Amino acid sequence: MRQRLLAHQYIQGILAGDRLLLSRAITLVESRRPDDQALAQQVLEAVLPTTGQSIRVGVTGVPGVGKSTFIEGFGQYLTNLGHRLAVLTIDPTSQRSGGSLLGDKTRMETLSMNPSAYIRPSPAGDSLGGVAHRTRETILLCEAAGFNIILVETVGVGQSETVVHGMVDFFLLLMLAGAGDELQGMKRGIMELADALCITKADGDNRPAAHRAQVEYQNALHLFPPTGTGWFPPVLTCSALTHDGLAAIWQTIQAHQQLTTNNGHWRQRRQEQQRTWFRSLLRQRLESQFYAQPGMLQQIAAMEEQVLAGKRLPAPAVEALVTNRLLADNQE
Amino acid sequence: MRQRLLAHQYIQGILAGDRLLLSRAITLVESRRPDDQALAQQVLEAVLPTTGQSIRVGVTGVPGVGKSTFIEGFGQYLTNLGHRLAVLTIDPTSQRSGGSLLGDKTRMETLSMNPSAYIRPSPAGDSLGGVAHRTRETILLCEAAGFNIILVETVGVGQSETVVHGMVDFFLLLMLAGAGDELQGMKRGIMELADALCITKADGDNRPAAHRAQVEYQNALHLFPPTGTGWFPPVLTCSALTHDGLAAIWQTIQAHQQLTTNNGHWRQRRQEQQRTWFRSLLRQRLESQFYAQPGMLQQIAAMEEQVLAGKRLPAPAVEALVTNRLLADNQE
Repeated sequence: MRQRLLAHQYIQGILAGDRLLLSRAITLVESRRPDDQALAQQVLEAVLPTTGQSIRVGVTGVPGVGKSTFIEGFGQYLTNLGHRLAVLTIDPTSQRSGGSLLGDKTRMETLSMNPSAYIRPSPAGDSLGGVAHRTRETILLCEAAGFNIILVETVGVGQSETVVHGMVDFFLLLMLAGAGDELQGMKRGIMELADALCITKADGDNRPAAHRAQVEYQNALHLFPPTGTGWFPPVLTCSALTHDGLAAIWQTIQAHQQLTTNNGHWRQRRQEQQRTWFRSLLRQRLESQFYAQPGMLQQIAAMEEQVLAGKRLPAPAVEALVTNRLLADNQE
Repeated sequence: MRQRLLAHQYIQGILAGDRLLLSRAITLVESRRPDDQALAQQVLEAVLPTTGQSIRVGVTGVPGVGKSTFIEGFGQYLTNLGHRLAVLTIDPTSQRSGGSLLGDKTRMETLSMNPSAYIRPSPAGDSLGGVAHRTRETILLCEAAGFNIILVETVGVGQSETVVHGMVDFFLLLMLAGAGDELQGMKRGIMELADALCITKADGDNRPAAHRAQVEYQNALHLFPPTGTGWFPPVLTCSALTHDGLAAIWQTIQAHQQLTTNNGHWRQRRQEQQRTWFRSLLRQRLESQFYAQPGMLQQIAAMEEQVLAGKRLPAPAVEALVTNRLLADNQE
């Protein structure tokens, strides 16, 4: 086991951009040990004033859309411009399946050796809320370490996209050309979260199909309710092979940033995200405190079963759980 | 004040289809008085075995789309077929604005005098969760009273559509022809909740535009991720004036019901709704218990302000609230 560091060592290391100490601080944040958590919060509060200045971008798309190669190419493009990039990957499937859709170490090989880039997979969590919470804190640590663009990557198949949408300034949805099988795995509702769509693999023989898809999606988006921020989500195309379209994506993100900064929606979105974070954390805390009572999980499961079987209504079931009238009720 | 009835009087009245007693039972369900609530739950548990057999349909659309005239016409059509129809309207705006978008008594004049129809506006609630909870229980009472089709109506401008989507078998989104100003008020994400879209006012000079819109939306929906139930949301047109298209809407709802009943998704959706109802009610109960502590609302507000100002992180803020270390922390 590694030697335990003190708070000021973490803080100084992070603020100096020390990647090893950044990584160890993120591990602290992810730890469930109470002493680790206390130390993590101490470090976070100390670096808080230096955070919040990055552009936070969510990137999602179903497996096969080419997320890794996109981020590899886009990341190189951004660091060539002089930016410092942190890539955080959220993979809620890795715990469930034993394997991981994202955790493959061979992914993003070039970017992982780029001194201006930092790649960190989020560990699989037992709850989306937990993952989201730790990823939000990890974003803060990366910002404190001097990264000015944060990409948060998810697989576009579950609930995690809504969660990621709630922690970024810009949400990019990667899509394949044609509306066929590749839509099967995609979560419904995700298209209306996107600040931009990008059709990937727009190269070689696939170019005409990609541009057709671009026009189709652009027409479809016009029929959507507006975002309410004055921003109209564009549909772009790109190729991770030729790097065509990467510059346009970055311009789009910057244009969105500029528009929403000027009209106040950037600040409003960040504030709303903070509020949601705070409230959902409070809710989780109250729930986990309640669930932690001896035998409560079993009691909840039993009650839920009765509700699902139509034998009990939710309101009296909840009342019985909360007032602990379970035994009495069961004897009736 | 009316004479207080006993549980068995409500129960017998509801099961006999007595509309006056049904209305009084719904008022009980909506009451916040603990003794009313206890009585309401007693009535609900007694009628529970007779519930669940109706087709529950959500109808939404922005103000101006013609929801009332649609429901008036569609309701007449359904009762002419021999159905018994209950219409529940949810209007979360009525408390906030003082006025009401839905509560107008002059609406649905013909339907309100139809002996096979029952119209009940949901009172404005102080929380969406509360409205949803009471509307779910009202659905059960209407089913027990023999109504075999329940329409739940909302204005398509807020969060209430997601809530209504969570309590119906079929979600119908009414739209106007053309993708212009009428989309402005519409909630983003709502289109991907719909089991069918219907372009209203497809009559007279507006017919060509309505049919153009139908084709455009149908094309756009093909680019959406699939529903996962084997159902492909169609785009229909209708006229409340000529009653054109009303039969097709009812056929669509029945086709959806048949498909999802056969492939198990109907049952799955109902079970999922029960689970969500139970869990969200438990969560609300825990929160309101916590909030009810003396001074807690003020403390939460003060903490949230610090979080939004970037002076505090959510995790320690929540910890301080839950462990009541507030005074100590403020003195630091």
